[in-house]
Amino acid sequence: MGFIQNTQVVLASRPVTDIDPKTTFRKQTVSLSDELGPNEVLVKVLFVSLDPAMRGWMRDVRSYIRPVRIDEVMRSSDVAQVIKSNSPDYKFGDIVRVTCGWQEYAILTPSEDMVKIKTFPGVSPSTYLGVLGPTGLTAYFGITDIGEIAKKGGPNCTVVVSGAAGATGSVAAQIAKHVYGCRVIGIAGSDDKCDYLTKELGLDVALNYKSKTFFKELCVATPKLIDIFYDNTGGDILDGCLRRIAFKGRIVVCGAISTYNEAVPKGPAYYSALITQRARMEGFIVFDYAKQYGKAIEDMSKWIKEGKLKSRETIVHGIENAPDALVKLFNGDNTGKMLVKVADEETRSML
Amino acid sequence: MGFIQNTQVVLASRPVTDIDPKTTFRKQTVSLSDELGPNEVLVKVLFVSLDPAMRGWMRDVRSYIRPVRIDEVMRSSDVAQVIKSNSPDYKFGDIVRVTCGWQEYAILTPSEDMVKIKTFPGVSPSTYLGVLGPTGLTAYFGITDIGEIAKKGGPNCTVVVSGAAGATGSVAAQIAKHVYGCRVIGIAGSDDKCDYLTKELGLDVALNYKSKTFFKELCVATPKLIDIFYDNTGGDILDGCLRRIAFKGRIVVCGAISTYNEAVPKGPAYYSALITQRARMEGFIVFDYAKQYGKAIEDMSKWIKEGKLKSRETIVHGIENAPDALVKLFNGDNTGKMLVKVADEETRSML
Repeated sequence: MGFIQNTQVVLASRPVTDIDPKTTFRKQTVSLSDELGPNEVLVKVLFVSLDPAMRGWMRDVRSYIRPVRIDEVMRSSDVAQVIKSNSPDYKFGDIVRVTCGWQEYAILTPSEDMVKIKTFPGVSPSTYLGVLGPTGLTAYFGITDIGEIAKKGGPNCTVVVSGAAGATGSVAAQIAKHVYGCRVIGIAGSDDKCDYLTKELGLDVALNYKSKTFFKELCVATPKLIDIFYDNTGGDILDGCLRRIAFKGRIVVCGAISTYNEAVPKGPAYYSALITQRARMEGFIVFDYAKQYGKAIEDMSKWIKEGKLKSRETIVHGIENAPDALVKLFNGDNTGKMLVKVADEETRSML
Repeated sequence: MGFIQNTQVVLASRPVTDIDPKTTFRKQTVSLSDELGPNEVLVKVLFVSLDPAMRGWMRDVRSYIRPVRIDEVMRSSDVAQVIKSNSPDYKFGDIVRVTCGWQEYAILTPSEDMVKIKTFPGVSPSTYLGVLGPTGLTAYFGITDIGEIAKKGGPNCTVVVSGAAGATGSVAAQIAKHVYGCRVIGIAGSDDKCDYLTKELGLDVALNYKSKTFFKELCVATPKLIDIFYDNTGGDILDGCLRRIAFKGRIVVCGAISTYNEAVPKGPAYYSALITQRARMEGFIVFDYAKQYGKAIEDMSKWIKEGKLKSRETIVHGIENAPDALVKLFNGDNTGKMLVKVADEETRSML
């Protein structure tokens, strides 16, 4: 039996508005005994996923999941390696996707939350936090189930995606474009991201929402209005798209990153377009689709192989840098999936 | 051939915020020849319907119907009497529901918009502007189709209705309570209206939104949260109900009267509850259900006879008073349907 030094980042205080990396979080190092109880496994965290939803987990309000407690390790989806196991189902070296938060190691009892990953050449395990993880699955179910894209798809269907250069938006936009053949307009926050959207991901149009003439450009880009708006940002972009929503249009409310740091956010002023255009705004949480993950991962793996689904990662190194990286995510400094690389895989057991 | 003096109220200017009866509208009297072309009918307006939606018709924006033009007679649903007819389908004395606006007389060619009313003892023709007219039909289709009340109904289903003492709200609330057996909370703007909701309409709870502790009272009244929110008002009431929306809750966006006079309305700050609770907000326009009006009127006539559907009217006299009455509607001075009585029926032809 030995002890491992485990660096963790815990929630130190609940931010009212912006996250302050120095006061919102606190780094600590604790000793973790490597002695395992029956069926337990010890995992080493390799990658930590950073997601806009984390801002919601820090609020002490009724939500789909309990808030992270003060002094608790910050919650996150991670990819980890089993480095010691008392479970008949896991052995040294297995790679798993699991929710063990901002720390280097964790002792866990395998549950539904722990999913073994089949790694294959050319696909980093981190992909299971991005396209083939909760992020990509969110896009998949949002655009297919809530957006009902199969009903409307095709070149006469105009789809607009906000946060289109982000991890979820880029997947939703590519599915709409390359699987369902829609006209797809991606919205992002820099000209570089817009280039990425049209040149690398093949979207029809990309718009920089920071442009002074953004709404005018949106009007020009949507001559037949917007059939499906996949929204990751909320705010003025949502309002602009409400003003352009088509008859019976669908607004997939995936996220509202532009509002998450506001104490009381500004709501969509033009929501009454829902009435005049008989439109629908609907939210969802990917967890509800857990039973359909298998089919979705199969579909998306196929689309990756066919070149229909590309992805990028923005990687920060070291668990102690997770707070700064989360702030960068809210500032839109990432393209594609924002990750913290915590450690390399171990090739042989050190315990 | 003769001439009739026809008093009309026309749109004089588009209000940016509140309606000013003196400058927004203009009264005029024109001479109308009673000579009819082939198939035309001359109608005398008996009742004019006043509806929150009229505020939208005065805005020059993309909507479900073209804006009323400047100097055009203000649009409204009316009940009128045919007093001269060149149509084989209409004769003197027929009572019709029609959209001929704020005027005393009109010459019309019968179209789908003109519906002959079967009057019967104890039911005023004005009922066809209220419970059995567009107002009541709006409630019927909103609560059944958009609210999907048949899927959730019963005592474990909590329904909240804003503007519950109004013409549409009172019908939606009574259908939820007395047809589908839900727990129904009505929201209104005075204690008298609240008494009407519980004592006369039989709702479970009535809340005065002007109370300083309104949100607290809403929480107490919805211990199992809100499965269906039928919204006529928008604003803070919508936000309060978003904060209390249940898992997979439905928000029926019927209207947003509290916001119609605002140049840029305040949107619902808590709309991201749609995400966390997997909820849906959806708008609709009653016209889309035209093919199902017959069945709906049959159902509602039956419910009236069974005592399940009661209604009140607030009646103002004289077409020249329509502008003031419309302002009163926005001030919430009415209980039940707000109408202008323009004239009595004629018992024999004067032409």
